[in-house]
Amino acid sequence: MSVVGNRPAGRDGWAQPTHSAAPAHETEGPAAAGAPATTSASFHEMWRDLAPIGRNTTTNGYRRYAWTEADADCRTWFKEQAQTRGLTYEVDRNGNQWAWLGDPTAGNAVVTGSHLDSVPDGGAFDGPLGVVSSFAALDELRARGAHPTKPLAIVNFGDEEGARFGLACVGSRLTAGQLTTDQAHQLRDADGLSLPQAMERAGYDPDAIGPDPERLARIGAFVELHIEQGRALADTNDAVGVASAIWPHGRWRFDFHGEANHAGTTRIEDRRDPMLTYANTVLAARKKARIAGALATFGKVSVEPNGVNAIASLVRGWLDSRAADEETLAAVVGEIERAALERGERDGVDVRVTRESFTPVVEFAHDLRDRLSGLLGGVPVLPTGAGHDAGILSASVPTAMLFVRNPTGVSHSPAETAGEDDCLAGVAALAEVLEGLACH
Amino acid sequence: MSVVGNRPAGRDGWAQPTHSAAPAHETEGPAAAGAPATTSASFHEMWRDLAPIGRNTTTNGYRRYAWTEADADCRTWFKEQAQTRGLTYEVDRNGNQWAWLGDPTAGNAVVTGSHLDSVPDGGAFDGPLGVVSSFAALDELRARGAHPTKPLAIVNFGDEEGARFGLACVGSRLTAGQLTTDQAHQLRDADGLSLPQAMERAGYDPDAIGPDPERLARIGAFVELHIEQGRALADTNDAVGVASAIWPHGRWRFDFHGEANHAGTTRIEDRRDPMLTYANTVLAARKKARIAGALATFGKVSVEPNGVNAIASLVRGWLDSRAADEETLAAVVGEIERAALERGERDGVDVRVTRESFTPVVEFAHDLRDRLSGLLGGVPVLPTGAGHDAGILSASVPTAMLFVRNPTGVSHSPAETAGEDDCLAGVAALAEVLEGLACH
Repeated sequence: MSVVGNRPAGRDGWAQPTHSAAPAHETEGPAAAGAPATTSASFHEMWRDLAPIGRNTTTNGYRRYAWTEADADCRTWFKEQAQTRGLTYEVDRNGNQWAWLGDPTAGNAVVTGSHLDSVPDGGAFDGPLGVVSSFAALDELRARGAHPTKPLAIVNFGDEEGARFGLACVGSRLTAGQLTTDQAHQLRDADGLSLPQAMERAGYDPDAIGPDPERLARIGAFVELHIEQGRALADTNDAVGVASAIWPHGRWRFDFHGEANHAGTTRIEDRRDPMLTYANTVLAARKKARIAGALATFGKVSVEPNGVNAIASLVRGWLDSRAADEETLAAVVGEIERAALERGERDGVDVRVTRESFTPVVEFAHDLRDRLSGLLGGVPVLPTGAGHDAGILSASVPTAMLFVRNPTGVSHSPAETAGEDDCLAGVAALAEVLEGLACH
Repeated sequence: MSVVGNRPAGRDGWAQPTHSAAPAHETEGPAAAGAPATTSASFHEMWRDLAPIGRNTTTNGYRRYAWTEADADCRTWFKEQAQTRGLTYEVDRNGNQWAWLGDPTAGNAVVTGSHLDSVPDGGAFDGPLGVVSSFAALDELRARGAHPTKPLAIVNFGDEEGARFGLACVGSRLTAGQLTTDQAHQLRDADGLSLPQAMERAGYDPDAIGPDPERLARIGAFVELHIEQGRALADTNDAVGVASAIWPHGRWRFDFHGEANHAGTTRIEDRRDPMLTYANTVLAARKKARIAGALATFGKVSVEPNGVNAIASLVRGWLDSRAADEETLAAVVGEIERAALERGERDGVDVRVTRESFTPVVEFAHDLRDRLSGLLGGVPVLPTGAGHDAGILSASVPTAMLFVRNPTGVSHSPAETAGEDDCLAGVAALAEVLEGLACH
């Protein structure tokens, strides 16, 4: 664990900012010394600085994968934000970054934050909007002269998307004891590099990772702000909403084993082509999910040998499936698996299904959810199909989420977007919530 | 072009072997100085030396791709075989290797050979059986004391499988003028490396590549021995057969453009998921081909962004299709394309189809084919769906092919195999053919 920037608190409970690292706009307005002139300017400056990191100039999508160079640049950015504001900066044993206002060990802390990593060619908002809004909300409270009576912290959870090692929320799972050290040490990326090797190359100690109950015990409430990943708020014409629940969801790997053969000479009746079984399963998944009102997606495939004139020997497809309740989800996945096995028998293809991850339904703490909704004047309360670090933490601490309107509803893509006014409405809502939870 | 090992011919027309590089078994028998003791021993030794090159120890398949290290090792092996036998060794402007017995420029040469590269995780026989059998057949003629009246040559055509740059028979296509220098310079591998860059790194001059009519004009007949890629000879219980024709065949790239989105939050009605269109097209291809008595295979796929929890933005699938005649092939591919477009409309997915390569039907020279069949005592004459360098050359020179029985019928896979006796029967047949064509 590294701790830096632990500066003495000023007269209003705010830590004194580091003047040497203060942003250029610190002289632009009448706010407290070193604080941004306005919340809007603070938000924009952070957004601008973060924008180029890990962006692919061809796809315009982000490739910020855990323990890569882009990830390190995001982490440097986070650390600088903490130091600029005179917050106490920590990296926990699992590589999650924390920026504290007040005594980290005092207990009953109000924590906000999200993540900075991305899916392959993801958008700019999923994750970063929550982290940037957290810093901007703290700037807003500072500008208001708010007096926190509890510690406040901002967190950047590592490897939320699971883009590299295939498991989402690794940082929060480890901390909450929902992923063991041994399990994490087994994770490998597409190049065969293990998570410990990747952490070590990034300058972190993989032997230190594991559950962190002491750190969880410091937290009185966790609030994650996130861009909405659907169009519910667009439909109700609201800038901000509060989460009710996260649908249960999981990942299943379908291995279709056939027989490699020459595409130009093997008679149809002699083929054992796993691509056919895979294709049929993709279509079955959509159909079964639609009937059940659930979601089922094959978005990742790997083929061996993957040659144009070779019948595949192995097609591996990953199913992502979610539903409003666990019974429906189990039924849908069971039906997809049966469809795969039946078609496999016809194709002479061996089908094996492995559940790679499963996250039960998350009901966010009702009293905290109701309190947020009240603080924000009765904004919509809505469920989501997406997993989040907030979902992981909710098993250990009272947890809530705020959503910011996404007009396209598109997520995990460069087309994901949010209006400037809505982003600032999100910051204002988060500031309201933090003040309500930490200052009274 | 490099020329080495150009040694003076001995009394019987054979070049004198290089004693210093002679194989260990040269003292094992009563054959001519430096020649293998027996054709069988010669075959086995070559097979043994070639076997470990480019073999993946996990899959047991071969990964001998053009201009890689494994390819260079195969080329070194070929050069050594030429030198050991005192043959004139040449590399032509397109990187094809030649080993000449007699004057390369005399004209009316009888040429045999095949290729040494492989598909991803290919078998040991596809290509190498033809090259090894060519050297063994020459050894056999030498042991018999045959007197060639025409130049004889063995060729190793470069990049036959097209595993790296996506186009088959690059070496022979260039030589025959069926691929222009410009077109070849545009080829890129999966890492974005161009063919010229790859050739340069392997020590070859990419600026030299292009048509080679002068070299083609030297050839009076070309005979390629190849493992059968089906079970026709297994069914008729013959060790060796003669090719009648190569089915017309081609590669088409299907690009399915949808919209990347979050697999857990995007409503089914809001999705534009190209994986569905791809899957439907895979199943349609099988169905259309089966009805027409043709072949259609999707064996290679590439997905963007290829994340478990992301709906794909782009699925790219490569169709390999073949039929007995060009009309049937065009009809089948047209129907697959129509099925893709129709389903794409339903899925909100844009479908674009690009023909990447097309090889018209090849009817091997009838008189040469009949002569071979006669020389071999009326062995079966059969068509094949696989492309070969022989197919490319047949447009320029009289060309024939011999097939060796493959009991499993499996091809482009480590399961591809041939019995020892059948391999030696193939060598004997090739020796018979070469003697018949070059010694009378």
